[in-house]
Amino acid sequence: MAAKYGLLLVGIGMGDIHSMTTSALNAIQNADLRILESYTAKWNDDDILKLKEMVGEFEYALRPDIENPDKILAQCQEKSVAIMVIGDPMQATTHVDLLLRAEELEIPYKVYHGISITNLATGISGLSNYRFGRPTTLTYAYGGWVATSPLEVISVNLQLNLHTLVLFDLDPTGLGTGNMQPMLPIDARKVMYQMLEKWQEDSLQEIEEVVDSSFKFKNHSVKQLPENLSQLPVVVCTDLGTTNQSLWRGILGSIEKAPVGNMHCMIIPSHLSEIEEKALKKWAKE
Amino acid sequence: MAAKYGLLLVGIGMGDIHSMTTSALNAIQNADLRILESYTAKWNDDDILKLKEMVGEFEYALRPDIENPDKILAQCQEKSVAIMVIGDPMQATTHVDLLLRAEELEIPYKVYHGISITNLATGISGLSNYRFGRPTTLTYAYGGWVATSPLEVISVNLQLNLHTLVLFDLDPTGLGTGNMQPMLPIDARKVMYQMLEKWQEDSLQEIEEVVDSSFKFKNHSVKQLPENLSQLPVVVCTDLGTTNQSLWRGILGSIEKAPVGNMHCMIIPSHLSEIEEKALKKWAKE
Repeated sequence: MAAKYGLLLVGIGMGDIHSMTTSALNAIQNADLRILESYTAKWNDDDILKLKEMVGEFEYALRPDIENPDKILAQCQEKSVAIMVIGDPMQATTHVDLLLRAEELEIPYKVYHGISITNLATGISGLSNYRFGRPTTLTYAYGGWVATSPLEVISVNLQLNLHTLVLFDLDPTGLGTGNMQPMLPIDARKVMYQMLEKWQEDSLQEIEEVVDSSFKFKNHSVKQLPENLSQLPVVVCTDLGTTNQSLWRGILGSIEKAPVGNMHCMIIPSHLSEIEEKALKKWAKE
Repeated sequence: MAAKYGLLLVGIGMGDIHSMTTSALNAIQNADLRILESYTAKWNDDDILKLKEMVGEFEYALRPDIENPDKILAQCQEKSVAIMVIGDPMQATTHVDLLLRAEELEIPYKVYHGISITNLATGISGLSNYRFGRPTTLTYAYGGWVATSPLEVISVNLQLNLHTLVLFDLDPTGLGTGNMQPMLPIDARKVMYQMLEKWQEDSLQEIEEVVDSSFKFKNHSVKQLPENLSQLPVVVCTDLGTTNQSLWRGILGSIEKAPVGNMHCMIIPSHLSEIEEKALKKWAKE
């Protein structure tokens, strides 16, 4: 970047400092101020320490700092500020919004892309990227409110014979203000059971209100989940992109057997092609 | 990697050498033999030259070398061989298969992931990753054979109100043996019109043979495309990840107005959220 000030939105990849691109590393090292966005994903303490050794000291930003970015943008008017985001920075609406605000203020900006979990999960599992439908995120139940959309996404994908990448929330409060607790596989199961219960209640209430084809589709698709949700095939991904990464293949009902690490996500596989089956057999524990 | 021999499958990212991760760069520089896989994507000559300066000389592998990899795997028994793949190496079945073969021969292997076009296209456009359905690739019509599946994927996604990432083929022969000609936006339009014609013929023939729900769905979904395919909204992505990258927003019928570069892909947007609309307005030429 030619300007001496501005916003650098830098993806630092998954897992550790070596998964950063050389241009990202360069940009961070040369920035006047470094800020780690710390509410959409988490690295372990060791890797955070190594990051500091490699790029120098940095501050932390939580959700309110990014969503109400007046302070950050004011700093960008005077110096070059690198916002470091785990994975790829442009997968989140908040970051798109941040760039649009910078543009309105005529602050120069540049994006450095990083390897995202979407890449890693499809790649490491050996499942074909072309056979993944829409991804989803399992959220914690916030104060009694239970989302059902993740289950709907999974069942629509199954109906279309597509795999689903299921990311896990890491913020039990939904506020993004600290005390992040990345969802564990057993929490994910609990949340999914809650979702099914809620969805079945909703379906009973709304069964008469079939107004358009998308709604019909929604109801139809519930049938694609196994009658007993605990039988749903899952592939749990643990600490992808780190030296500890592992895949575990089983059913939702036995998810407590999956390895527990720092960050998890899950793939709900549909029917597997021959090579996908072979790859999972080799690379996923059962 | 501890072993002095083996297979390194290395993603080198999109665009140029600076989009490589530091671990990928390291692995390539330290390998005994370097091979660039050159049939699933293409860099321009300048960047290939810079890559050589940075990592040393390398050979090229075409599709037959990777699909019948006896020669490569024999070399991996004696030295460390880095197969460089543009983008991420594990998005293609062929590379998954290559790893499985290495494993059968007890050849040590390691994968280095790279930034893939999937990351870039969703990120650079500002469209939400969560609103992308299954991706597809537009293939050239090989000797009279026209695929209709890309159009089916697009229309199913539109029915579900999801965007589609449409990659472009770069091999008019389908053999992967050289003379790659990355599909241009105007070729893409031509192929899509051919596909529609084929699909409509097929539908007439098969209308009586409605055997299962997936087939019904397939026929139903044709309606989601505009009656006149030339009205289909498209976002053409040109040279993503390079300094020349650009986005162009328009309709399929006017696709000749899109910038022409070295590599292209396309997004078929569904209904845009407010922030998606705002991002496209800012970042895509019309």
